[in-house]
Amino acid sequence: MIKKIIALLGLVLFQYMVSKAQSTGIYMPLPAHMEKLDGKFAIHSEFSTFVEGPTSERVRSAVQRFQYRLSSITRMSINWYEYNTHDQPSLSIVYQNSVAQAHLGMDESYRISIDPDAGILLQAPTDIGIVRGLETLLQSLEWESSEYFFPMLEIYDGPRFPWRGLMLDVCRHFMPIDRVKSIIDGMVVAKLNVLHWHLSEDQGFRVESKKFPRLHELGSDGLYYTHDQIREVIYYADIRGIRVMPEFDMPGHTTAWMVGHPELASAPGPYTIERFFGVFDPTMDPTSENTYQFLTSFLEEMSTLFTDEYLHIGGDENNGVQWDQNESIQRFMKDKQIENNHQLQAYFNQRILHILEANGKKMMGWDEILEEGISKDIVIHSWRGKDQLVTAAKNGYKTVLSNGYYIDLSQPASFHYTNDPLPADSPLDPMFHSNILGGEATMWSELVSAGNVETRIWPRTLAIAERLWSPLDVNDVPNMYERLFKMEDHLELAGSYHRKNRNALILQIAGKEEASLLEYLLDWLEPLDGYRRHGSQPRYTSYTPLTRPVDATYPDAIRAVKFGIVLQRLHSHFNQSDYQFLKNELKDFKEKSKSFEAFTEQNHLLNEIQPLVAALITTMSIIEELVENINNKKLTNNLRLTYIDKINELNIPAGELELGITPWVLETLKTNGKD
Amino acid sequence: MIKKIIALLGLVLFQYMVSKAQSTGIYMPLPAHMEKLDGKFAIHSEFSTFVEGPTSERVRSAVQRFQYRLSSITRMSINWYEYNTHDQPSLSIVYQNSVAQAHLGMDESYRISIDPDAGILLQAPTDIGIVRGLETLLQSLEWESSEYFFPMLEIYDGPRFPWRGLMLDVCRHFMPIDRVKSIIDGMVVAKLNVLHWHLSEDQGFRVESKKFPRLHELGSDGLYYTHDQIREVIYYADIRGIRVMPEFDMPGHTTAWMVGHPELASAPGPYTIERFFGVFDPTMDPTSENTYQFLTSFLEEMSTLFTDEYLHIGGDENNGVQWDQNESIQRFMKDKQIENNHQLQAYFNQRILHILEANGKKMMGWDEILEEGISKDIVIHSWRGKDQLVTAAKNGYKTVLSNGYYIDLSQPASFHYTNDPLPADSPLDPMFHSNILGGEATMWSELVSAGNVETRIWPRTLAIAERLWSPLDVNDVPNMYERLFKMEDHLELAGSYHRKNRNALILQIAGKEEASLLEYLLDWLEPLDGYRRHGSQPRYTSYTPLTRPVDATYPDAIRAVKFGIVLQRLHSHFNQSDYQFLKNELKDFKEKSKSFEAFTEQNHLLNEIQPLVAALITTMSIIEELVENINNKKLTNNLRLTYIDKINELNIPAGELELGITPWVLETLKTNGKD
Repeated sequence: MIKKIIALLGLVLFQYMVSKAQSTGIYMPLPAHMEKLDGKFAIHSEFSTFVEGPTSERVRSAVQRFQYRLSSITRMSINWYEYNTHDQPSLSIVYQNSVAQAHLGMDESYRISIDPDAGILLQAPTDIGIVRGLETLLQSLEWESSEYFFPMLEIYDGPRFPWRGLMLDVCRHFMPIDRVKSIIDGMVVAKLNVLHWHLSEDQGFRVESKKFPRLHELGSDGLYYTHDQIREVIYYADIRGIRVMPEFDMPGHTTAWMVGHPELASAPGPYTIERFFGVFDPTMDPTSENTYQFLTSFLEEMSTLFTDEYLHIGGDENNGVQWDQNESIQRFMKDKQIENNHQLQAYFNQRILHILEANGKKMMGWDEILEEGISKDIVIHSWRGKDQLVTAAKNGYKTVLSNGYYIDLSQPASFHYTNDPLPADSPLDPMFHSNILGGEATMWSELVSAGNVETRIWPRTLAIAERLWSPLDVNDVPNMYERLFKMEDHLELAGSYHRKNRNALILQIAGKEEASLLEYLLDWLEPLDGYRRHGSQPRYTSYTPLTRPVDATYPDAIRAVKFGIVLQRLHSHFNQSDYQFLKNELKDFKEKSKSFEAFTEQNHLLNEIQPLVAALITTMSIIEELVENINNKKLTNNLRLTYIDKINELNIPAGELELGITPWVLETLKTNGKD
Repeated sequence: MIKKIIALLGLVLFQYMVSKAQSTGIYMPLPAHMEKLDGKFAIHSEFSTFVEGPTSERVRSAVQRFQYRLSSITRMSINWYEYNTHDQPSLSIVYQNSVAQAHLGMDESYRISIDPDAGILLQAPTDIGIVRGLETLLQSLEWESSEYFFPMLEIYDGPRFPWRGLMLDVCRHFMPIDRVKSIIDGMVVAKLNVLHWHLSEDQGFRVESKKFPRLHELGSDGLYYTHDQIREVIYYADIRGIRVMPEFDMPGHTTAWMVGHPELASAPGPYTIERFFGVFDPTMDPTSENTYQFLTSFLEEMSTLFTDEYLHIGGDENNGVQWDQNESIQRFMKDKQIENNHQLQAYFNQRILHILEANGKKMMGWDEILEEGISKDIVIHSWRGKDQLVTAAKNGYKTVLSNGYYIDLSQPASFHYTNDPLPADSPLDPMFHSNILGGEATMWSELVSAGNVETRIWPRTLAIAERLWSPLDVNDVPNMYERLFKMEDHLELAGSYHRKNRNALILQIAGKEEASLLEYLLDWLEPLDGYRRHGSQPRYTSYTPLTRPVDATYPDAIRAVKFGIVLQRLHSHFNQSDYQFLKNELKDFKEKSKSFEAFTEQNHLLNEIQPLVAALITTMSIIEELVENINNKKLTNNLRLTYIDKINELNIPAGELELGITPWVLETLKTNGKD
């Protein structure tokens, strides 16, 4: 079934280049079951909506958003809000339950049936299913010239995994409340259901504490959320069917706590907010009863403020330096026969677990918290590798995968997409499969600010969202990319700022007259991936402005990816339309690249990428030759190796950017192709 | 002095077209006194800030925003926050008082002194002066290649008028809290100091009332602000030195109140939220003691929530229909010898005034509330004409001008700019001048949504802001436009979304590949001005989507204005560089316009502007001929009249848009020019 849908969706490939004369739907994440038939339900200005189910602010506001977006796209004045007044409504929404609060395991399934005569029926067991279904319904919208319609179809859909999260680090760079909300707006489109809010770090303590105001007053530079704001975000997320799980990372990554409360640390202090990034020494003293008294009181406050069942205690990257150097801690370990720092941290975790349990919370932590004997009620969050995930699941722990979903590392979306928490060849016994709750994309913020965080999250996190929502066999990379780039419109209209903020930065760098040229150029470039940018000189700090060309690039260089996919396909089997597409792109590039030199020379903000632009121009000319050779089927082994050498030679980063096309060409040249 | 500054600033004319290799400062509103000398204070990574004055969250956060913007522009990693640690700080900020709350008459003056050796000194009597001064300081930033510096200068500055407001209608279209805040961000750049928040209307009641929850529950479609959100906005504005004055329009414009409280009306109801725009019948019953009991309780609640000294009661456009038809009201009028509806409304106002006074508030209202005998403590808000303003001021009333500042009407910025509340030839006796408090730009929202409201407000409201801040003799229109368009960068970096949201809509209409072409085209077009769009068919309602080409245009078509200014100058005295500029623009237009036909034909969203595009192309070819004629000094009277006819003939709107260049050409052709 799924393969059939993909084939069907394949028809829309590369329509992004043609005019907006028509469009079929774009589904992402792909529904679990879908059948598209031949027929249309046209949208007209008397489009009426009927809602049947218990009162639900979720449904009310989701319908309002649906209507806003639908009329924004269609430009139709539709007479909304006249529920229940039509004998046969255009859209009927029927659900059984209004969920008290979004929670792990909530029913998110729904069913859509569109019929040219009977109209649209959206049904779900819960109001959260309705929220999900309305997104899919919008994605199904099609048009031909100025006629807009929903196609005749049947969809039965529900998520593969119940935990589909996005972790947002608001500590390395603060994200104002508006940014958090617009990120949630994007999550709704992606059908993600957990906002994991990373709220404390060496670089900042971001929550108001009424019990310990020195935490936010001294640990945040004034950049923190008030209780009211947090409640506002929780509500905002909840009516979109999204949970909000806070993280207070401990005992390491806690420098900002200690600015106001040095007594929590394992060394005397004083402390200042950390401005660099990395792993630092300040660590809570796990041997002091003071620490637990403080945390008992603090976690009680936070357990009331944050209403989700889960609270994340971090627990990662404790370097042990302060513990090793503290005599009293060493004595404590000897007395209690605690053999090493890992065991000491386990002791700490155990104490925290009791505090959380007393407050009715379940504990989650990064995979360092897994220790023999610890309660099976905790959730292990795997970041270091999939082995940890499997081990934990096998041992009866619920687990969530983030290894492979580090979207801060600028890896290709395809890398994340093919990273399945439970692949077909998983070594895990099926009886433990349900221990794999899902996964979370992690947006660490050393190298992003509120200005470009969404540009880094979207559209790519949709690839992870689809991995976690759609069936296992939905895994066609070119098709994923095709839909991914098209989802930008949906995201923006839903409230995301990924493209708006990117364009603002491009304008800021290039000015109005040359903005589109710079955008074109940047669409061929990608930020250095992995941790390579972290090693740059001068070292990044919290104060380093993130307004350079690299900060306006997508980790998947959109033009390079589109070009690369077609190049690979052409290499594996020739077809005229692919060939023509590449020729056109190359011609266009040649034309535009004439201005690159003067442009990057005159604007001092672009000087740093001049070498890369030169390399891009040469690389593209090599590719032009390559395309001709592929076309003429003359690509000998020798020639292939020559090309590989040439392309590699030009692969030198500049301005923390590199050519997006290079990996695609190298991948293409791996084989002899169709010869 | 001022003329000298303008001459100096004139040097930067049309630099927007050249590369970003260098830039001098852009000041808007222009400081009252300014002397620029020959010298620089270079910005370096050890830029340090010293603050001396009483604790002020205003100063703390303003410094943080200053630093963020400065490093965003310069791309420099600067070691901030190390106050007081340098013997000689780069920037010294010294102020005497921290103002408890922003209020009418607060001292906003400041003084900047920049010296190549001694660094920057910013002084002010209050912390609000510091907020204003930091904006000016950022505006003074210059660069040459990659060197950024502040020029040597002396500025003494303070506002001409103490009331410089922006009225925001959040009723016809709701503006979420984030939008309100980003509008405040823009107001800070413009040195505006009053957000007049128009909160209730026929189309929506936008504030939570804890005393009368049916008001917002039934009167808002769920689109209202909670008390927490309102307090957040007030705080957000206050630390930026901006007052927040609420308006609850009464007794007319009150349909949304009556959905939940029909007993307030002068006719039985039931009522539903109004979806059309205009003047409607529902009006409060001014003869019922119930009404006053209700309003006593309601206004008490709002007087606590909104902390500004003033509360605006609207009072405009009561059509009297319900009063005329209500027998009991007619009887009441007879009994009390009230002769007409105007007097009846005066009676109502008098009662409201007492309620407000009991709550420690001063009353403001639209100019209909002016009635003999009413307390001199009220403020008259003139919207119908300047005569009203003068009359009120002469009679001892404080007044605020909005007539001529209706930014929803898409008139040219120059029109607003030359509309002085107290012009040199004012008939008002100097002894009453201080009764003119200032003015307010009014952003009525019938035809704007949250998506494009900022695009309509900015950058043009800066022209009004300058009118209200800078001296009377700052009034050079071409110079104003020149600076106005350049301020876009400042606004965006400060947090405004005017350009980002416009670009998002352009992308939505045109798609990525053709967005820059559409932007270019729209930069020649303007929305119909005045009330002409209101008459369009089908009639606009609250549900009409505002996502058409017209919704992405600026009321001052940027390319047309720039072209028009140069054309007029060339006509009055020939110079080669102006001539060359026009030639280049025309060449560029010819090149780009080749694609217009196919582009607007293929994209059905652009079909409606096809006739206009054809007219634009023809108009530009006539202008090309005209430019050659001006150049050759052959423009006879006959030819001039022929051109006028031709241009007029092509002046037919389409898609609620018209050509931005037409008025400029017609204005140019009014005279024979240099011949």
